[in-house]
Amino acid sequence: MFRKEIKVLDCTIRDGGLMNNWQFSDEFVKAVYDACVVSGVDYMEIGYKSSEKSFSRDEVGDWKFCDEKALKRIVGNNKTTLKLSAMADIGRIEPEDILPAKESLLDMIRVAAYAHQVDKAIWLAEHCMDKGYEVTINLMAVSTVIERDLEEALADLAKSKVPIIYLVDSFGSMYCEQIEDLVDKYQKLMPGKTIGMHMHNNMQLAFSNTITGIIKNCNYLDATFLGIGRGAGNCPLELLMSFLKNPKFKIKPILEVIQKYLIPMQNEIDWGYHMPYLITGALNQHPRSALKWMNSENKNDFVGFYEQITDKKDL
Amino acid sequence: MFRKEIKVLDCTIRDGGLMNNWQFSDEFVKAVYDACVVSGVDYMEIGYKSSEKSFSRDEVGDWKFCDEKALKRIVGNNKTTLKLSAMADIGRIEPEDILPAKESLLDMIRVAAYAHQVDKAIWLAEHCMDKGYEVTINLMAVSTVIERDLEEALADLAKSKVPIIYLVDSFGSMYCEQIEDLVDKYQKLMPGKTIGMHMHNNMQLAFSNTITGIIKNCNYLDATFLGIGRGAGNCPLELLMSFLKNPKFKIKPILEVIQKYLIPMQNEIDWGYHMPYLITGALNQHPRSALKWMNSENKNDFVGFYEQITDKKDL
Repeated sequence: MFRKEIKVLDCTIRDGGLMNNWQFSDEFVKAVYDACVVSGVDYMEIGYKSSEKSFSRDEVGDWKFCDEKALKRIVGNNKTTLKLSAMADIGRIEPEDILPAKESLLDMIRVAAYAHQVDKAIWLAEHCMDKGYEVTINLMAVSTVIERDLEEALADLAKSKVPIIYLVDSFGSMYCEQIEDLVDKYQKLMPGKTIGMHMHNNMQLAFSNTITGIIKNCNYLDATFLGIGRGAGNCPLELLMSFLKNPKFKIKPILEVIQKYLIPMQNEIDWGYHMPYLITGALNQHPRSALKWMNSENKNDFVGFYEQITDKKDL
Repeated sequence: MFRKEIKVLDCTIRDGGLMNNWQFSDEFVKAVYDACVVSGVDYMEIGYKSSEKSFSRDEVGDWKFCDEKALKRIVGNNKTTLKLSAMADIGRIEPEDILPAKESLLDMIRVAAYAHQVDKAIWLAEHCMDKGYEVTINLMAVSTVIERDLEEALADLAKSKVPIIYLVDSFGSMYCEQIEDLVDKYQKLMPGKTIGMHMHNNMQLAFSNTITGIIKNCNYLDATFLGIGRGAGNCPLELLMSFLKNPKFKIKPILEVIQKYLIPMQNEIDWGYHMPYLITGALNQHPRSALKWMNSENKNDFVGFYEQITDKKDL
């Protein structure tokens, strides 16, 4: 699939960090950065932009804050074609935490918001635009938003200056048919906006749903090395790279980082295809109950998790 | 997706056995059988039907032959709604190896054939029909068959008495668009035939490609417990069950077998999402080079495999 408008965004550190409180070594973050540069990845989302008041540095690593000093340690002055992104969660950041873009190594701020927060998201995103950043709004958990509320949120986004809106399958619960319907709706209600895809892999559909998005003209595509991310993880970057035919994309630097860092990391961080994540995905539920189970001593008793979550009924 | 014509075929023992020469314990085969019965699975493919002359019992287990004595040990007289299937490979079985259906516990013979073997496949399948079996022909490796040869094979199959023809993604190389095109072609050139889906998971697309088949009215669906199968494996049965809404299908008995048997088995048999299988899938190649690599001491050096298979060019 060659389409020059397609942009690939690696969110390995940002989404993967949800599994280890962003306690990655500098060596690893640098390896991901270097591989993104040579592989032709367009954006690397290196973490969250958060207020120091919202989180303790005793609990979370540098990539929950993405201050300039930490960024510089990894990317120097980033004289490359790779742009850097950070995600901002509504309510966990103050406008004054965001430097003017020309004083920052960050190129893009992605605002994550639930449908009911869309007004706040637009305000924050437009504030970031005014400061000189590229911006997106990533509308989360839309699989549980009723039709009328979703349409109102999309109508508000349509009127905003924000150029890129993401379809986010937060619970990994969507099949291709839902993706097609939602992309149709997003395109119809937000004419002229670019649509992005951020998929989760609870049912091994993150890559195929991303392809469905590509076919339907979505142009911003999120992925991570070996699919690392919260719970079941994300669309694997190596798969996306094998599918995209733009000659600027290279797969080998990604394989090298997977071999050296991600495979060993699987012994410490349990993302991927596990039955509790399948179950919450199939039930269209937030993965938090599955994450809690996976961190308990009952981890391997997923039949027990199934019985608990379904109250012993059939799924 | 509720459609009463849909039939689910579990091929855990048959396809999974390609990874361990069918050396499964009776306890495991019985557990799969029992779970298939209570989960509403329609067919269990318990192995291959092969000539004793083609393989040595020193190397392969009972499920390479599926003789009646072995079958009876597991299923008794099989007084259940679950039908039993065995696969026959062209050239590895003699017609006289196949008992009349009324003397056998097997209900179905599936004939696996390459496009150039289609005449032999039709002869064997019709021979099995004459002996009283349900039959299918599974046309393998069609991703490497040139258009004219495929169309000729399909035209021959259309004229045969064989009612069910499988679309087989032997190399795990197909995207949804190829599936859609091929199903269209199969349906157009073989009007009235039922189409089956047997997908491999090299690019995490086995489940999504199976869904694409379902949407396009394919009604025979292959899957295995936890996706066990050759190389990257097959469509995971637990995912398929979570998608199908026919109330006869139950997921919990499948989860129980996965928890008790398949998870531990992963320590011995290395099926699943591994980079060498991704690479052969993306290149539309037989997985044998990847299987060989995964069985070598270089197993974890998949960058080395990538360099070897691409001759250090980019994929």
